[in-house]
Amino acid sequence: MRALVTGGAGFIGSHLIDRLVARGDKVSVVDNLSSGVIEFIQGHIDSGAVTFHNADLKDLNGLIPLMDGIDMVYHLAANPDIRLGTKITDTDLNEGTIATYNVLEAMRLAGVGKIAFASSSVVYGEGAPMPTPEDHGPCLPISLYGASKQAGEGLIGSWVGTFGLQAWIFRFANIIGERGTHGVIFDFIHKLKADPSRLEVLGNGLQEKSYMEVGDCVDAILHVIQNTDDNINLYNLGSNDTCSVRNIAAIVIKETGCDGASIEYTGGDRGWAGDIPKAMLAINRLKKLGFKVNYDSEEAVAYTTRVLIKEIMG
Amino acid sequence: MRALVTGGAGFIGSHLIDRLVARGDKVSVVDNLSSGVIEFIQGHIDSGAVTFHNADLKDLNGLIPLMDGIDMVYHLAANPDIRLGTKITDTDLNEGTIATYNVLEAMRLAGVGKIAFASSSVVYGEGAPMPTPEDHGPCLPISLYGASKQAGEGLIGSWVGTFGLQAWIFRFANIIGERGTHGVIFDFIHKLKADPSRLEVLGNGLQEKSYMEVGDCVDAILHVIQNTDDNINLYNLGSNDTCSVRNIAAIVIKETGCDGASIEYTGGDRGWAGDIPKAMLAINRLKKLGFKVNYDSEEAVAYTTRVLIKEIMG
Repeated sequence: MRALVTGGAGFIGSHLIDRLVARGDKVSVVDNLSSGVIEFIQGHIDSGAVTFHNADLKDLNGLIPLMDGIDMVYHLAANPDIRLGTKITDTDLNEGTIATYNVLEAMRLAGVGKIAFASSSVVYGEGAPMPTPEDHGPCLPISLYGASKQAGEGLIGSWVGTFGLQAWIFRFANIIGERGTHGVIFDFIHKLKADPSRLEVLGNGLQEKSYMEVGDCVDAILHVIQNTDDNINLYNLGSNDTCSVRNIAAIVIKETGCDGASIEYTGGDRGWAGDIPKAMLAINRLKKLGFKVNYDSEEAVAYTTRVLIKEIMG
Repeated sequence: MRALVTGGAGFIGSHLIDRLVARGDKVSVVDNLSSGVIEFIQGHIDSGAVTFHNADLKDLNGLIPLMDGIDMVYHLAANPDIRLGTKITDTDLNEGTIATYNVLEAMRLAGVGKIAFASSSVVYGEGAPMPTPEDHGPCLPISLYGASKQAGEGLIGSWVGTFGLQAWIFRFANIIGERGTHGVIFDFIHKLKADPSRLEVLGNGLQEKSYMEVGDCVDAILHVIQNTDDNINLYNLGSNDTCSVRNIAAIVIKETGCDGASIEYTGGDRGWAGDIPKAMLAINRLKKLGFKVNYDSEEAVAYTTRVLIKEIMG
């Protein structure tokens, strides 16, 4: 199997590549290193298991030759900073929607038949029932990141319906773990590193979301692909429960040893405009395929906190 | 009320403008005349009720000054040819998704607070229950046109959630009537005009969809906007029943007087890759607001056939 992973030098991409290489796939990586970190996959590049292309998905013509001989594309590349859309409105359009169009068009022109796509729980928008099943509707995302993920899903659907592509769409909960480069735990550790006496928390801390450990996430991706074969296969990926931001703050303070730190809430029910305060995905479909999630949300948070403290604090 | 109508020189846009002008709105039109017809609104331009801007939505900078002083945008502009996506893959991306981004961004920069958007029943994709309610999910469109409409909905949702826009999204059934510039009735009349002895029908003719007369459509748009006030308001617009393509062929043959014409089906269950063979929207939400649809599907088809025969055959 020859795989191409977009965003392969990123947080989730590099974990997926660990699995693909371990099972013997030949892997090409396309990453512009805007948020990816080459060190995450340097070992695989050195061993010859991974071919790295420093290329930008916004360049369709540059992408087409990289599709040559590829059996399956794992399209994970995206702007990872959801909050950015509140200030710069064309990042998610360019790095998300248009990049996904380019991936699909390059695949069509090169005759590549299968794609897996990293979508997100944020496509469900606000006010969805919890836990949210895959067939919830209508989906009206409230962040520009969410809009780009939904647009990517729609583009993939249209390539399936019009050009015979086969696709797996994964709507991710908050994915956390080793090599994390963004997100609430990452932010909290950096804040406490800068000032161990206080921790600023965006919102009132009552935000409550489902967290999935990145190893669980990439195992689930490969499990679903191996056990499904519809033209289009849509799966939520998450864990069995949620963890509040207050709880995360307490865990990070404890694990960093900053026991005296004061927690300062900025207030309001959400971290920023476009943030969804409460989110939990229904994962019955995933479980029906025989997949077992290893980490519950709080366990994933505690584990991630410990590994990120090592990575960030040294 | 100062309104800006994108695609205002088009089929649906020009009917909407008739209503807006009649109730005393000042109307600006943005249209690049790629499929719009200036004659449709020339009377309103001459009377001074409509200001026409021959501008392209792909040019964001050109759009911003046109938003000055506007209260409400009716965003109807799009590539009207759904089939085109099977051959040229970037038309719907550029004329649909990116154009909608530009409209929203220009509104944000100019401080325009309200938008109505022409979405489509094709966002529901294939296999949805019939009649299809607004809360059906997941929505995975199978045409590139459908993908661009879904992307537009998501962008609007994100502008509502992030920047405080107020929005009305309308998912249209097949809208037909006077000044129609595309679609099955338009095509059939043109075919019979070219050769009255035979009529080629794409697919097996068993395709069956809901048709709404364009006057009903624009009345429904204005009725919904007047009677709803949520941050985001989502409504299916359609009629109470469906009409098959075989039935449409029979009506067009009868009305054109081409009684001896042989009907030749190209075969298969759909007209083209990405076509949805059967579609009917649930319009309970629309009815709950007290709106009454004047034309059933077959009546709308018969009426449209008669007026288009006059327009096309002269």
